[in-house]
Amino acid sequence: MSNASSNLGQRVSEPGMTELWNVWYSELHEGLSGFTVKIDRVVESLQSDFQRIDILETKDFGRLLVLYGSLMAADRDNNAYNEMITHVPLFTHPNPKRALIIGGGDCGALTEILKHPEVQECVMCEIDKMVVEVSKKYFPYLTTGADDPRAKLVFQDGKEYIVNGKDKFDVIMLDLSDPVGPAEELFQEPFYRNVYNRLNDDGILVAQSESPFFNQRSVKGIYANLKAVFPSVHMYTCFMPIYPSAYWSFAFCSKKYHPIKDFDRARWDRLKLKTRYYNADIHTAAFALPEFVKELFR
Amino acid sequence: MSNASSNLGQRVSEPGMTELWNVWYSELHEGLSGFTVKIDRVVESLQSDFQRIDILETKDFGRLLVLYGSLMAADRDNNAYNEMITHVPLFTHPNPKRALIIGGGDCGALTEILKHPEVQECVMCEIDKMVVEVSKKYFPYLTTGADDPRAKLVFQDGKEYIVNGKDKFDVIMLDLSDPVGPAEELFQEPFYRNVYNRLNDDGILVAQSESPFFNQRSVKGIYANLKAVFPSVHMYTCFMPIYPSAYWSFAFCSKKYHPIKDFDRARWDRLKLKTRYYNADIHTAAFALPEFVKELFR
Repeated sequence: MSNASSNLGQRVSEPGMTELWNVWYSELHEGLSGFTVKIDRVVESLQSDFQRIDILETKDFGRLLVLYGSLMAADRDNNAYNEMITHVPLFTHPNPKRALIIGGGDCGALTEILKHPEVQECVMCEIDKMVVEVSKKYFPYLTTGADDPRAKLVFQDGKEYIVNGKDKFDVIMLDLSDPVGPAEELFQEPFYRNVYNRLNDDGILVAQSESPFFNQRSVKGIYANLKAVFPSVHMYTCFMPIYPSAYWSFAFCSKKYHPIKDFDRARWDRLKLKTRYYNADIHTAAFALPEFVKELFR
Repeated sequence: MSNASSNLGQRVSEPGMTELWNVWYSELHEGLSGFTVKIDRVVESLQSDFQRIDILETKDFGRLLVLYGSLMAADRDNNAYNEMITHVPLFTHPNPKRALIIGGGDCGALTEILKHPEVQECVMCEIDKMVVEVSKKYFPYLTTGADDPRAKLVFQDGKEYIVNGKDKFDVIMLDLSDPVGPAEELFQEPFYRNVYNRLNDDGILVAQSESPFFNQRSVKGIYANLKAVFPSVHMYTCFMPIYPSAYWSFAFCSKKYHPIKDFDRARWDRLKLKTRYYNADIHTAAFALPEFVKELFR
């Protein structure tokens, strides 16, 4: 029996063969329900010092970026997460000169922030350099911000960066993975207090705060911790088709500004940023919460 | 070899056996991506004169109602669809006395409508009586409206009901299945013109109008057809976790009233209806459309 690999059979590039490939990516909530998408091809699978990274090719959503088994970005999502975590605080703060992202390795949030001419510097502190490299290679449109001279990339643990530094920011965004495992501490009150201290006196924090449909216990915990630190905390939400339940929330936490009363609509009208989800009406509407979400805070 | 069924093996009710049951319900967009949920048990599968009807038991969502392979309702969804298709027009119309639902066999919309004391009669025209019967048996909390003396159930083809009748309504809701197959005609301009004629001079139509994320071609068609008939057409959306993409839209079509300017917030405050999704803030916010949706109308 020949062991020559050329004798093992047809190559999958033969016409008709790809129809027999039936591989699916599924992301399940507690193993019971969730999102599933057919994969055309596993483009690359890597192991960084911190996590497994997969790039998958699909027909329905284009390329997917999967970190430690969680879908982070897709060519054909709606960019809602990146736009909502950034433009909501940036169009509320009257003069956002210095911004900080903790996490955000795919650079999607960074790219949105640097659409604002008021921003003079945006630090992105991401623990895993390989996520940035992979994103630059496979999602170049997401990472244009990384080449902006105002971008300062720091590859370091976010907690250390927050605790050890002294310089202050106008807007901080916690673009973190889920509050289990290594990131858990970054959803606790002591960390939020340190974040508070790195904000200017009129600074704004926005933290991603999970799915209000699936992660109700996490959501309650996050908001209790934030409200112990910040005088003003408001949840807002968006439709994000590739995240668990497709409904995602953010915590707007502020020392001074109100996300609706202080929204600078005139600046949005003047800058004419190109977005796929965010706009002035969405800015305000996103703070209207359905009854089942309000219930979490009663 | 014995043929006695009692000798075939253990019953699945034996402890530990159900862990080996690994059956999933998946609803896919063009066979490529979608929602998947683990099934504990197939409670009942029926064939009516019109369609296949399945009742499935799940851990994550409770019982599911599946019609012709599409998930319609679940014990633990957020009731957004039923509340949004009804309360938005009913709290906009100043005096909604007569309402009509075309479709809506699970009675969820009917039950919401009859929470309004102003409504004196609600006709529900559903082609498939078996859907109502199955819903009464398995989703009794959805069907309480069917026992209200103001409810009038008509088991007839919706198109015939609209075309052949003469009496008029204040609010009509098209709670229809997807615009493919038998229901296709009910998304076309001639039918919408007939619906227009069954509305009073200040009447409101709300039609479910598919997912603006997945069904963009259908959405464009539906709105073009509606705008050819109604002077005022506005899209609004909701988060509906069990529908394709979890993001659903409705067309508010009116002869006279504006869904936000004429919203009777005082009535909402006074009636104190118990809802799980709808509230006064959501009423207005639902009309704010993300850029990728506005793009469909440019």
